[in-house]
Amino acid sequence: MRKPVVGVMGGGQASKEAMESAELLGRLIAQRGWILLNGGRNAGIMAASSRGAKEAGGFVVGVLPDADDCSVSPDLDLAIMTNMGDARNVINVLSSDVVIACEGREGTLSEVAIALKNGKRVVAMGFDAGGSLLASKKEGRLVEVHSAEQAIEQVKAWLAA
Amino acid sequence: MRKPVVGVMGGGQASKEAMESAELLGRLIAQRGWILLNGGRNAGIMAASSRGAKEAGGFVVGVLPDADDCSVSPDLDLAIMTNMGDARNVINVLSSDVVIACEGREGTLSEVAIALKNGKRVVAMGFDAGGSLLASKKEGRLVEVHSAEQAIEQVKAWLAA
Amino acid sequence: MRKPVVGVMGGGQASKEAMESAELLGRLIAQRGWILLNGGRNAGIMAASSRGAKEAGGFVVGVLPDADDCSVSPDLDLAIMTNMGDARNVINVLSSDVVIACEGREGTLSEVAIALKNGKRVVAMGFDAGGSLLASKKEGRLVEVHSAEQAIEQVKAWLAA
Amino acid sequence: MRKPVVGVMGGGQASKEAMESAELLGRLIAQRGWILLNGGRNAGIMAASSRGAKEAGGFVVGVLPDADDCSVSPDLDLAIMTNMGDARNVINVLSSDVVIACEGREGTLSEVAIALKNGKRVVAMGFDAGGSLLASKKEGRLVEVHSAEQAIEQVKAWLAA
Repeated sequence: MRKPVVGVMGGGQASKEAMESAELLGRLIAQRGWILLNGGRNAGIMAASSRGAKEAGGFVVGVLPDADDCSVSPDLDLAIMTNMGDARNVINVLSSDVVIACEGREGTLSEVAIALKNGKRVVAMGFDAGGSLLASKKEGRLVEVHSAEQAIEQVKAWLAA
Repeated sequence: MRKPVVGVMGGGQASKEAMESAELLGRLIAQRGWILLNGGRNAGIMAASSRGAKEAGGFVVGVLPDADDCSVSPDLDLAIMTNMGDARNVINVLSSDVVIACEGREGTLSEVAIALKNGKRVVAMGFDAGGSLLASKKEGRLVEVHSAEQAIEQVKAWLAA
Repeated sequence: MRKPVVGVMGGGQASKEAMESAELLGRLIAQRGWILLNGGRNAGIMAASSRGAKEAGGFVVGVLPDADDCSVSPDLDLAIMTNMGDARNVINVLSSDVVIACEGREGTLSEVAIALKNGKRVVAMGFDAGGSLLASKKEGRLVEVHSAEQAIEQVKAWLAA
Repeated sequence: MRKPVVGVMGGGQASKEAMESAELLGRLIAQRGWILLNGGRNAGIMAASSRGAKEAGGFVVGVLPDADDCSVSPDLDLAIMTNMGDARNVINVLSSDVVIACEGREGTLSEVAIALKNGKRVVAMGFDAGGSLLASKKEGRLVEVHSAEQAIEQVKAWLAA
């Protein structure tokens, strides 16, 4: 049986507070024994969550928009190189059992949208899901939380279901 | 010189009102001499805008998620088959000079988000852009309109700039 | 009914002789009323075939590996921007009714292979199909020709079938 | 430091002999401490190499053409779902430090071609590289071997360089 894969999405730039939450999130994901999947670059939420998971001994896979590994986080165990720019966002969410959306902008929004379109469940952790995703919120497929611990509890509940 | 390419995005299912607006939009795009680009399927906003453009003698290109042409609108002049599912959304917006977002859900939202991330300008015509895109609205890169005629005027202004 | 789409593949660098054949090929494709599809860049077989088709009044669509149009041939009518590098090779062949492979190297070989894998028929015009494609040659799905005129005759026969 | 990633490519159908070699190859890759990357499906060379690596306690990642995991080998540790059909072949080779091509047809040939185009080194183990790849053979970037043990020795030499 494969371990659950939890995708953590978020901006290549993020506030200090969001970075700290993402690092904690990575640590908690690793402690649960889940695989962390993110965008793989050495920047923002990607770098922070990878660092947290790696420090806790977890397995980290990054799915990168690039062809070569110049921008890869040093904390990855595996780098999937797509050379596909934003089209890799689709791969990120299809390969995750659950998606957690952290602080981010249009790239993160596209991942939330494609995840929901493909029947994935999404935890919004400091990500403003906005009015256009209201239907998914009502259906309980998009849930907003206020801490990494809450995010983990939600993921745990969904994985158990 | 290539003719301008106007991308029209929207749901595979849409209200009767949105379908009529999309058909008119397709007609107006063709009358301007612009190429219409959409998702190519014989459903919803794609089918309606293609029909309008075709009736007005325009050129219609569809970029499809599929490998074969079973679901292609009969009004296309050219079908680009990607076999890439939602990853083709990225191609749609990168290949358009301006994007018009009609009524739609998560798929359309992903296209609006990726368009804005890649510096494209977006007209929202009956598409609820929602809170998370507020920054782009403030910057004037995402403009909301209430009719096909207004959409065309906005595209015209941007293409002239 | 859509016009037939003939894909012309070949290297970004090619011999003078192969460039002249590709230009003639583009011209003959346009004269037949077919759409020419190629890789879209302003180099090698892509540029040559586009030039020939454009001079003869045809419609030329390029499917590019790039995100922006800096490298686009001036003879395109439509540029599909994928930002997907070599993955666009798959789109090229899936979107073509028949593929003609001109002089080229590994990129062209990948297109021939993916075309055959997906049931497309391939004309090799100055492309050394090599031993590993022998099965397809035996089955008549890969045919070698020695001139642009012969290539057109083969495409014509397949399109009529 | 990430562990080396060795990509094993080959047909979804293969001879009994090629399957046995691929299973041994997977085992040897795992014993070396390398990550095995393949196409991830529960068929042919993919299934055989995964089984071998898993039995030896290795880590196996599959990059699949599909959107859902219905066809995934039971021996994967991680399934990257692309929903991109043959375009995932590009991801396979870009994500591998070295590629080993086993018995296969057009799909495998496309992977060999794209690997070489992108500067990757390729071991052909029971894969008939054919005449069109002669240049790469002469340059030593494509090397033919006759056993899994020889393949491993070649990969080891390249990784050390």
